[in-house]
Amino acid sequence: MEEKKLTGKIARERIYLMETPRPPAGLIEAFKSLGDATGIVSDVMDQLGMTWTVPATLLKPTIAGTCIVGPALTVRNIVQREHVYETARNSVNKMAEFEAHNLACPGDVLVLEGVAGISNMGGISAQIAKRQGEAGAVVSGGIRDIAHSRRVQFPLWASEVTPITGKWRLETVAINTDIEIFGVRVAPGDIVIADDTGVCFIPRARAAEVLELARKKSAAEDERCRSIDAGVAIADLPKRNRESA
Amino acid sequence: MEEKKLTGKIARERIYLMETPRPPAGLIEAFKSLGDATGIVSDVMDQLGMTWTVPATLLKPTIAGTCIVGPALTVRNIVQREHVYETARNSVNKMAEFEAHNLACPGDVLVLEGVAGISNMGGISAQIAKRQGEAGAVVSGGIRDIAHSRRVQFPLWASEVTPITGKWRLETVAINTDIEIFGVRVAPGDIVIADDTGVCFIPRARAAEVLELARKKSAAEDERCRSIDAGVAIADLPKRNRESA
Amino acid sequence: MEEKKLTGKIARERIYLMETPRPPAGLIEAFKSLGDATGIVSDVMDQLGMTWTVPATLLKPTIAGTCIVGPALTVRNIVQREHVYETARNSVNKMAEFEAHNLACPGDVLVLEGVAGISNMGGISAQIAKRQGEAGAVVSGGIRDIAHSRRVQFPLWASEVTPITGKWRLETVAINTDIEIFGVRVAPGDIVIADDTGVCFIPRARAAEVLELARKKSAAEDERCRSIDAGVAIADLPKRNRESA
Amino acid sequence: MEEKKLTGKIARERIYLMETPRPPAGLIEAFKSLGDATGIVSDVMDQLGMTWTVPATLLKPTIAGTCIVGPALTVRNIVQREHVYETARNSVNKMAEFEAHNLACPGDVLVLEGVAGISNMGGISAQIAKRQGEAGAVVSGGIRDIAHSRRVQFPLWASEVTPITGKWRLETVAINTDIEIFGVRVAPGDIVIADDTGVCFIPRARAAEVLELARKKSAAEDERCRSIDAGVAIADLPKRNRESA
Amino acid sequence: MEEKKLTGKIARERIYLMETPRPPAGLIEAFKSLGDATGIVSDVMDQLGMTWTVPATLLKPTIAGTCIVGPALTVRNIVQREHVYETARNSVNKMAEFEAHNLACPGDVLVLEGVAGISNMGGISAQIAKRQGEAGAVVSGGIRDIAHSRRVQFPLWASEVTPITGKWRLETVAINTDIEIFGVRVAPGDIVIADDTGVCFIPRARAAEVLELARKKSAAEDERCRSIDAGVAIADLPKRNRESA
Amino acid sequence: MEEKKLTGKIARERIYLMETPRPPAGLIEAFKSLGDATGIVSDVMDQLGMTWTVPATLLKPTIAGTCIVGPALTVRNIVQREHVYETARNSVNKMAEFEAHNLACPGDVLVLEGVAGISNMGGISAQIAKRQGEAGAVVSGGIRDIAHSRRVQFPLWASEVTPITGKWRLETVAINTDIEIFGVRVAPGDIVIADDTGVCFIPRARAAEVLELARKKSAAEDERCRSIDAGVAIADLPKRNRESA
Repeated sequence: MEEKKLTGKIARERIYLMETPRPPAGLIEAFKSLGDATGIVSDVMDQLGMTWTVPATLLKPTIAGTCIVGPALTVRNIVQREHVYETARNSVNKMAEFEAHNLACPGDVLVLEGVAGISNMGGISAQIAKRQGEAGAVVSGGIRDIAHSRRVQFPLWASEVTPITGKWRLETVAINTDIEIFGVRVAPGDIVIADDTGVCFIPRARAAEVLELARKKSAAEDERCRSIDAGVAIADLPKRNRESA
Repeated sequence: MEEKKLTGKIARERIYLMETPRPPAGLIEAFKSLGDATGIVSDVMDQLGMTWTVPATLLKPTIAGTCIVGPALTVRNIVQREHVYETARNSVNKMAEFEAHNLACPGDVLVLEGVAGISNMGGISAQIAKRQGEAGAVVSGGIRDIAHSRRVQFPLWASEVTPITGKWRLETVAINTDIEIFGVRVAPGDIVIADDTGVCFIPRARAAEVLELARKKSAAEDERCRSIDAGVAIADLPKRNRESA
Repeated sequence: MEEKKLTGKIARERIYLMETPRPPAGLIEAFKSLGDATGIVSDVMDQLGMTWTVPATLLKPTIAGTCIVGPALTVRNIVQREHVYETARNSVNKMAEFEAHNLACPGDVLVLEGVAGISNMGGISAQIAKRQGEAGAVVSGGIRDIAHSRRVQFPLWASEVTPITGKWRLETVAINTDIEIFGVRVAPGDIVIADDTGVCFIPRARAAEVLELARKKSAAEDERCRSIDAGVAIADLPKRNRESA
Repeated sequence: MEEKKLTGKIARERIYLMETPRPPAGLIEAFKSLGDATGIVSDVMDQLGMTWTVPATLLKPTIAGTCIVGPALTVRNIVQREHVYETARNSVNKMAEFEAHNLACPGDVLVLEGVAGISNMGGISAQIAKRQGEAGAVVSGGIRDIAHSRRVQFPLWASEVTPITGKWRLETVAINTDIEIFGVRVAPGDIVIADDTGVCFIPRARAAEVLELARKKSAAEDERCRSIDAGVAIADLPKRNRESA
Repeated sequence: MEEKKLTGKIARERIYLMETPRPPAGLIEAFKSLGDATGIVSDVMDQLGMTWTVPATLLKPTIAGTCIVGPALTVRNIVQREHVYETARNSVNKMAEFEAHNLACPGDVLVLEGVAGISNMGGISAQIAKRQGEAGAVVSGGIRDIAHSRRVQFPLWASEVTPITGKWRLETVAINTDIEIFGVRVAPGDIVIADDTGVCFIPRARAAEVLELARKKSAAEDERCRSIDAGVAIADLPKRNRESA
Repeated sequence: MEEKKLTGKIARERIYLMETPRPPAGLIEAFKSLGDATGIVSDVMDQLGMTWTVPATLLKPTIAGTCIVGPALTVRNIVQREHVYETARNSVNKMAEFEAHNLACPGDVLVLEGVAGISNMGGISAQIAKRQGEAGAVVSGGIRDIAHSRRVQFPLWASEVTPITGKWRLETVAINTDIEIFGVRVAPGDIVIADDTGVCFIPRARAAEVLELARKKSAAEDERCRSIDAGVAIADLPKRNRESA
């Protein structure tokens, strides 16, 4: 991995990890098998005292019906100092999420603490993310070229959609360091789960614990759904116990 | 109806009516035959001095292209007093919209004055509402498990979508009493009409009057549409009279 | 054009131009051939020192996947002075965007500085706009009858969706004069480009200049996309030069 | 008045009235004698079916404890078309509320439909307004130099306070025409009443009627206050009748 | 207390307690002696797992520099069903916080879950609250007649200030029951502490516990302030221990 | 300076500069002599193509009538990862703006990119800042203990006021690095000017240039004020030239 040729778009010392920490084998698949799981995962994290969930009202999906799971590859953008009037004329482009794509492992989820009011990721960026095998992206702030990213079937969750480019307005200042997404602190390698209802961020160290509880809860919910389909009267439905509440 | 077995999730005295008042025969079907009627109904209510309409910008539909009509079965939630850290660990679940499903008659529309920032209704709740024959639900506050409720084809209108559960954060404090939905006061049995453009709440006592005017207006609009299709010049289109304005 | 019969819904002197200035031949088609171009056009305008772009977060499209280009036919609405309680009973209707439809040339884009919180354009209005050959409409403020306008395949970009009519609450005070759409000043005949990502307004006098730069940028982006599909390593992708940045 | 030398900052035809319509003799003084009267005036307008009131939450006073009454001298600003980068360097100043000051009669209240996010009126403008005898100003949008306007004791009600100038970003497009202030339509000569609680706009033609009812209501309220001071038990306080409700 | 003559403005069964539960002797005075204590009290509640605090950004004080402590006398308002156009003409006044003043004991803090966008408490109401010896009022929603309540030195914390009356737009539906203030559930008799920084609601049953910890923390903070005044270097300041953190 | 004893509240490598760059001699005093200068300074920066100004609507002053000028001592906070329920009980305090106070030189202005919704700076912190000779503080996010900071006459500009502590909810992650305050990038040593109207951030390298233009503009404005006081007719006031526009 060290030999990977860098793009030079961001200083080497601002890349805090050259590779996102890999999840344990089978973990991602196990979470995926739960289906649209942000509700269940959020409940389990509640019970463990860590509600790190952002609603779809804030992070809206670009492709309805999609569900992704993967380790977080983090990027942080802040505003540039120079006036866009100058930077646009002189093409002063300090956007460097391409370096993150360069470092991405298949299955990674790009999680980008972006700048509000402008685009932090466009269609070509989505296309290359898709090629690199990333599962999707979560962006606080704007994105653009929605039709393009939908065409290449690369799903994003973002708080804004805007044609106004960030390339002359922002600077990527860190890759694979702790970032903040709508009040949730996300570390590289945290497990990201996103669906139509929202996005959960599970600390890597506790992902196995969350998975185990989520499985039990999911099984209990399936049981309840079967009871409903079987026509059991509401007052006779099995009580939700601690695992399935 | 009195013998219906209750769920025990909410005290009996907090259920103000065991059944939502039934609309006159044929009324629901007549409103349905008007198609996407929130515009027309809102206009009629304007003329009668009662604009009880909430825009789709606030109450967003989960299934585009759906239109529902039915009497309101109302539920009110407020925040719990205990910290979620304790309630989640101890599964202190005070959510009781299941009791409302239990009491629902086919065609009812669940109207829920919910708590903002959290989910007041999830996928299993939508599934059981569907089974009970409810027409749909209108929720001020969050809902979750959107993919689930779409799968069972149960339409909701809600102001937020979030994985964060309300079950440990809210308490259902009333069923079938007057509630407030974004500044509109809704009584049990009020006629709810919801489509892609918004939601109207028609007082039960005046529903027949609204229907009659809405029918006239709808006929006049159809006439105008036919004139347009027939190529009548804009300046020659029939004037909108009082009924059709 | 002078002989065109007017609707009488707005005083003649409030129509500042009887026809929107026509774009040079081929210009609209050339912009359309760029596909979803608001990103590229916004970038070019940045470089020329004029960022007149409104994000889709503010002006949301009613029909996803649609892209329109055309000259702006402008309309301005402000609130009526009388109370809706009286105006609705007396059908005091001061809405006059129908006059704009009456004056529209095929390909025009209706750009409407509307009133917030109410509908400035409904389904019948969309239907007649479609018949007149308008390409679409951009509305700051509310619109209604979304299902109707979708049915006739007339695309709108609007900031709100609400059943509450403007006809008794607003007055159309100008047609084809300068208006303001979310901080952007739009003149009649400006070129409007709208897609899933947002809306750009290009001053008519500079549209050819913008087009030329946009074409170069689009070609460079296509080149980059091909390199990506060809598997070129990210660090080896061609540098974005000034034209393609 | 016709001979008054103009500033040339705005085209003559954009000044719709050279002088704001004068209120009947004694009317302003009579309203002033009611004290902080926006509550009472708003109630009377409610009863007459015209609630044209803007809360202090939106239009915040710069000098607490001040109350003003006077006829509206209206001004409308919209955004400029050129980029501030160019206009600031070239001092392209299209702000013309100075012309309104030039035309002001003593006692006038400047009511300015301004541009959000920038300053529509600064300290020197406030100083000259004070010298011209204006009673105060009401501005939707930003103002600046608050310390300056406080120093010369010129009270303003505005929705924003910001150092960012409008002079290179906005254009004054009309003086003494109908404008819109947070959903209220204001005509030149309307009576403006502003205090710590908000701002009321009374149509000129109905000001005498409003005054008469307001006086009765005010007298009834004084009576109630005296009863309270006299220690009358709450349950024994005189009923509010229609005039004093 | 039972014989207290009621006002009749609200049905007797909607008054859930005729008197707010009284705090233990000395408790209020002890909290008051801590000065501006919302910061300290909020910290203690954090440590006890119950953060029931609303920022001054949401509940703004009308009289800066004031600090109040007292038991909550709760009131809940919701919107009326009828149109204000009718209710104002017919003086249909369903506001009943006067009944709460009637029942108030000296030192009570009126806590009112009000309706947004309109006034839930005016100047005369403040004047009578003052006469009854209430310590102040906390209102979610609007209040009016700010100059009046300041004149009689009755402090309020409210989210909005507006002249638009609630008397014809709202209905008081409960006195001395559980209410919700910006996400905090407040019961009658809860201890309210309000200052320039915000408002804390302490559950009555735990007030003594909170007081004890708050006193320790306050003493530790005083010690730190004295060290600062004495010129102790920052790096040498005493560590904050658990009690004083 | 190197020998200064550190507090240990933040890792040494997260302090990017041990001292904020000092402004040229006389510069601060010269800016101060301009009075409430954010309007003038914002104009000059406009002309130089760098509008780095935040309105008082966003950053509200705690002490009206105060004006400060000084070099920025920057601090950045982000959310902690652990749940407050645990951190509060265990007093896990990661707030380290005290280290910035420790490093402060007299005249510095603390500029803090804080966390929204919680307090980033309290009364004791203000008291020590005052003792260290800091001119004031500018905080994006919440502050608390307003009465305390007013008592020691330490002025702050902040976006929120809340009793809810950040000490268990945030972590100070950098001192004297580039930060972002409401879309403006601020570097350590940038000149901060704050008054009742807002806050300007002048890049250190261009401060002398800004000062020179600001002085000319200020002199021209004084001249205009004198003309106004002298009764010069508005149409005869000296034209604003480029320097004074």
